[in-house]
Amino acid sequence: MSILIVGTVAFDAIETPFGKTDKIIGGSGTYIGLAASFFYGNIKLVSVVGDDFPKETFKNFNKKGINTDGVQVVKGKRSFFWAGRYHLDMNTRDTIKTELNVLADFDPVLPENYRKPDYLMLGNIDPKLQIDVIEQLKVRPKLIAMDTMNYWMNNTKTDLYKALKMVDMLIVNDEEARQLANEFSIMKAAKVIRQMGPKYVVVKKGENGALLFYGDEVFFAPALPLEEVFDPTGAGDTFAGGFMGYLAKTKNTTFTNMKRAVIYGSAMASFCVEKFGPQRLFEIKNLQINKRVTDFVELTKFNIKPR
Amino acid sequence: MSILIVGTVAFDAIETPFGKTDKIIGGSGTYIGLAASFFYGNIKLVSVVGDDFPKETFKNFNKKGINTDGVQVVKGKRSFFWAGRYHLDMNTRDTIKTELNVLADFDPVLPENYRKPDYLMLGNIDPKLQIDVIEQLKVRPKLIAMDTMNYWMNNTKTDLYKALKMVDMLIVNDEEARQLANEFSIMKAAKVIRQMGPKYVVVKKGENGALLFYGDEVFFAPALPLEEVFDPTGAGDTFAGGFMGYLAKTKNTTFTNMKRAVIYGSAMASFCVEKFGPQRLFEIKNLQINKRVTDFVELTKFNIKPR
Repeated sequence: MSILIVGTVAFDAIETPFGKTDKIIGGSGTYIGLAASFFYGNIKLVSVVGDDFPKETFKNFNKKGINTDGVQVVKGKRSFFWAGRYHLDMNTRDTIKTELNVLADFDPVLPENYRKPDYLMLGNIDPKLQIDVIEQLKVRPKLIAMDTMNYWMNNTKTDLYKALKMVDMLIVNDEEARQLANEFSIMKAAKVIRQMGPKYVVVKKGENGALLFYGDEVFFAPALPLEEVFDPTGAGDTFAGGFMGYLAKTKNTTFTNMKRAVIYGSAMASFCVEKFGPQRLFEIKNLQINKRVTDFVELTKFNIKPR
Repeated sequence: MSILIVGTVAFDAIETPFGKTDKIIGGSGTYIGLAASFFYGNIKLVSVVGDDFPKETFKNFNKKGINTDGVQVVKGKRSFFWAGRYHLDMNTRDTIKTELNVLADFDPVLPENYRKPDYLMLGNIDPKLQIDVIEQLKVRPKLIAMDTMNYWMNNTKTDLYKALKMVDMLIVNDEEARQLANEFSIMKAAKVIRQMGPKYVVVKKGENGALLFYGDEVFFAPALPLEEVFDPTGAGDTFAGGFMGYLAKTKNTTFTNMKRAVIYGSAMASFCVEKFGPQRLFEIKNLQINKRVTDFVELTKFNIKPR
């Protein structure tokens, strides 16, 4: 049993109303992998970095059960870099700089022992690469989930539509769901997206929680109300990692279990935003996760038996 | 046992991306009263209208168990009128016109049989009038809840602070909570507001649900995800009316029962937005409310027993 994760491993420079960082590690693959590692011990990461990326970080990944054999290190080139500034509401941000660097020519090649994963999470990258990864697999995973963003909707629509037909689940935020479906109503957007391919759709609404759609069923999970959101970077990827990790741990992809996975994903995301970058994901312990899941139970629990 | 409601009974002209109305009936007292009437048969309404207000509407209120003896009819004057236009997101709106008319000189006088209510809901009006109503009571109600808005925070702060000290519960939307507390975080804002007087705080977040705060406890209820939100006017007041009506019906103001009341209030609000103005509140039947509450149970139900 393994989880295969495709995503960026990169540098971020983040500015929020509470402070700013120099280059720190980030990237969708980093957040997804770290979050999943709390639930499951066999995680395989596919990504690319430059030789400016600290080897120490790979050791830290490995200690957490994240195999990095599939992370290419390109000599003489620099890692993907993003710099951004969050507004006071922490829901909107400006991109200050994007340097693709090694990502511009990324051609993912799966090591032989990566080709039979049970779960596949395709982080937000060029849909052509997402397709490429799926096509290298020797066995169909139990669940393939993908993320995407407006850039691919605007620039690589054909590839994106093809990728959507190949996956079981799309995990996007509300604005992305609206744009992809060309529907303002999230309920309608989820229906339209499911006609594009994915049986399951997760719509993340940041501090306003997340919705899971499947058939005629809808499940809603709030985000944990926090006194401080320090840095939202990576929260969506952390959600996805926690979600996939929980599914893999429990070996159960029923809708009932996916609802639990949404709660665990939301719990992981609530930690992520407490400090800059992925720092909290290196600090927290399983006991804290269980405590936070209990907070979710308390937050949403009510007892009504309608007549 | 009775519920006393203070609020406007008025005309609205509403424009949404889906259409527009001429003058239709509206006002906080209208929405609160109608929503509460589904749960409880003894509702007393305090308000003021001009002689342009249709008498037929009072008959319709009375049929629903809403006593209108406390609604003053001012001869030769016109009813309060508000005209507004909603943006595409349905969360923001522009006020096109506000004509205070009779509301400018409103001096609420409670009929003798209004002065011993068990529950009091003070809709959004001048806090001086909210205080005036409380001071006319002969018995302290089991629960006094009030609404307010940014206008009173900006213009009648002293009265507002005094009113807050006299009530048990504040029911406001997220922007109002932020402004009142001068805190962006809703969690922090609720704490600050509770220090101003109300033991209970409800923060309504429109399509993103509602939070109930009391002591160290927090309860979150989502809004029902709808395919179409046709007209959000009155949804917040409808929530408050359903909430108070349910508490009165069940004669129970424990936190556990207030959580149920939040769900019933949310269910009522989900009907309100389906048509222009309060129209849906004249149409729906109790069976539909129970069905919708079941939808809430399904939407939010998950089964986790953390270790």
